[in-house]
Order: sequence, then structure tokens, then C-alpha cells
Amino acid sequence: MMVLYSYWRSTTSYRVRIGLNMKGLAYESRSIDLVAGAQRSEDFAAINPSRGVPALVLEDGTVLTQSMAILDYLDQRVPEPAFLPSDPTQRAKVSAAAQVIAMDIHPVNNLKVVGRLKGEHGASQDDGVAWMRHWMTEGFHAYMALLPKGDHVFSFADTPQICDICLVAQLYNAHRWGVDMSPFARLLEIEEAAMALESFQRAKPEAQPDAS
Amino acid sequence: MMVLYSYWRSTTSYRVRIGLNMKGLAYESRSIDLVAGAQRSEDFAAINPSRGVPALVLEDGTVLTQSMAILDYLDQRVPEPAFLPSDPTQRAKVSAAAQVIAMDIHPVNNLKVVGRLKGEHGASQDDGVAWMRHWMTEGFHAYMALLPKGDHVFSFADTPQICDICLVAQLYNAHRWGVDMSPFARLLEIEEAAMALESFQRAKPEAQPDAS
Repeated sequence: MMVLYSYWRSTTSYRVRIGLNMKGLAYESRSIDLVAGAQRSEDFAAINPSRGVPALVLEDGTVLTQSMAILDYLDQRVPEPAFLPSDPTQRAKVSAAAQVIAMDIHPVNNLKVVGRLKGEHGASQDDGVAWMRHWMTEGFHAYMALLPKGDHVFSFADTPQICDICLVAQLYNAHRWGVDMSPFARLLEIEEAAMALESFQRAKPEAQPDAS
Repeated sequence: MMVLYSYWRSTTSYRVRIGLNMKGLAYESRSIDLVAGAQRSEDFAAINPSRGVPALVLEDGTVLTQSMAILDYLDQRVPEPAFLPSDPTQRAKVSAAAQVIAMDIHPVNNLKVVGRLKGEHGASQDDGVAWMRHWMTEGFHAYMALLPKGDHVFSFADTPQICDICLVAQLYNAHRWGVDMSPFARLLEIEEAAMALESFQRAKPEAQPDAS
């Protein structure tokens, strides 16, 4: 069985948990406590030299890292339900929306980045929260602007795609850090539709064995 | 003909220029001067609501954003030379290496992020440079740790793949900001091999019409 090194509140781990569930792939979950610094241990660095979660260990022992590369792997391994449309232009649009979250929001708000902002640049806890809210608000506006006209249950379609996976995981963080969601009612609708699905429900942070 | 909104020193624009050249696709280049803030103009926001470069306008007027989504589009449109291996596990490894650059380094060192560090958090110019060097150094170590054993001209193969495209563009920034490259001799070898190729030469910042 595959093993997923994960942390309940890590939104990139959350993405991979949703992906595994959507593809119907069973996995064993092992917790890496990011707040306690377990990702910096030498034992874990031997598994993932980037010292982050998620890391997915395949049946043959191969270790895959980087949540978006792992989701692409899952999509190659189990083509249905597809994370991306087959038309190249539509695919590029869905992929770009996913990357607004995965590149423009998440990395800048990563625990180690906000930690450095505080540790090296004297930012207070409140400054750190304001930093995170700023990039989420800016990114959600950009995401909204990419959404197509028309009536879809999810961002671009009636079934969830990779952008919805990234969005729902990021919204967990938005709620956690008190982002004003009043300009983003459409995103909350998408979240509600997603959370009605078992693949998303089982993946949510609060449902993980290491949740506290 | 396709139109690429680009800025000579933008490393994400550089990635797309390399990709277009590798696929043999002609394009017209239009400069968006990031330092002058041209990306924040209302005219440009109508083209790219994320207000960043690159943005690729297709022959039919469709606007594609996000450099990694654009590279994936180019790879779908013109399959050879392929940016990724066909084997799913190898593909995931090459993709993860690309994402160490595209997610763990670049977004955190983006002009707007470093600008906020200075503007809102009182960081000096030197602090900003130290910030960029830190994430590049950490990311290059993670990249090196992902490289396979064996004798390859590029990171994973004898022809450049998407990770090499991202790496070479990031190395431009590393040189610009004076990252100590002494631990990363292998990365400089890859850069040298890439810069011997016309597709990379023509894409380099100094070769762009808006270079100054």
C-alpha cells in the first residue's frame, strides 16, 4: 500500500489526500508534525530532501514529492475522474487557476516563509496574519477573474478538477486565518459543493488521525 | 502569430521564451515593464487579471497565464521535444524538480513579495537580497538532492526537460543577486550545456528587445 507522509493542517497534504480519495486509491497515513519541526529531522530528510510534506511512497519504495507533481502522477496512474480537461486550451485555463493558488498564494504563506518573516524581519504574530490574508485576498481575486461565465457547480465544470482541489485546501487556511470572504461568495459555493463529496470530507484536516 | 507579454528579467517569462523556442513556435514579444509597474495598469489587467507576466495570447485571442500552465499547453500542442518523460514515475520526479524551483523558490522571491517585505516590514535592500539568496540556496540544495545518479548532460536526461528550463531561468536570478554557487557546481554545468543551445540563447534576458 502507498504511504503518505502528511500533516493534518498542511494544505498541500490536503490536496494530495483529496486526489488519492478521488482516484479511489488506498493509502496509509503517517504524520509529520510540522509545528514540532519533525520535517527537519535527519530521518525525514532521508525520505524527502526538501523536508516538507506531502511525500508519497509508492508500493515499490519510490518517493514522490511536491503536491502538484504527485497529483499529476495520480492522474497519469488512474485517468478517471480526470483532474484536467482534455482540450489543451481548457486544460491550460484550469491549470492556471490551480497555479494561482499553488504558486501565487501558498508558497508565500508557507510556515517556513512566515516563520522567517517573524524570526529574521521582526514581524509580529499579527503582521504574519496580515501577510497571509494579503496574499490570499489578492490570489482569490485573481482566481475569481479566471472563472468562466456560465453555471457550473465547480470552478470550470460540474465535477471537481485540480483547481477545485487547490481552492478547497486553500479555503481551509483562509477560514483559519480569518480572511474576509465577503467578496468571494462564489468560492464558498464551490467549497460547499466539494464538502458534500465523500472524497473531500475524508480528506479534510479535522478528519485526520493527527488532528488536535 | 502568438503574442507573448514578457519582461526581459522576469524568470517566468524566460521559462516561456525557452519553451516556445524549443517547440519551434514563432511569437511576437511585447514588453511589460515590471519595474515601472506596467503590469498594474488597467489595460494590462484586462489581459491578465493576475497582473503578472508572462501572458501568452493565442492566435484566436485566448489569453493563457501562469508560466507552468503555458509550458504544459506548449507540450500538449507540440509534443516533441517533450518537456517531461512518458513514464509516470520519471515524469513525477522531473516535475517535482521543476516545482522545487517554480514553487519553493520563485514565488517567495517574486518582485511583489520582496517589495512587500521592504514596504510593509521595513526590510532594507540588503535584507531583501539576503531573503532571496536564502530561498535560492535552500531550493538549490533540495534540487541537487533530487538529481539521479549517473552521467546526464541535463538534470535527468541528455536533452533539456521542464526542470532544466526552470533551473536555467532561476540561475539567471542567482547570478544577478550574488548567490554563492560554490556548492552547486553541477547546476552550473547544466546551465553551460543549456546555454550552448540556440533555444536557450535566444531566450536569455540580455537577448530581449526590452533589455537595458
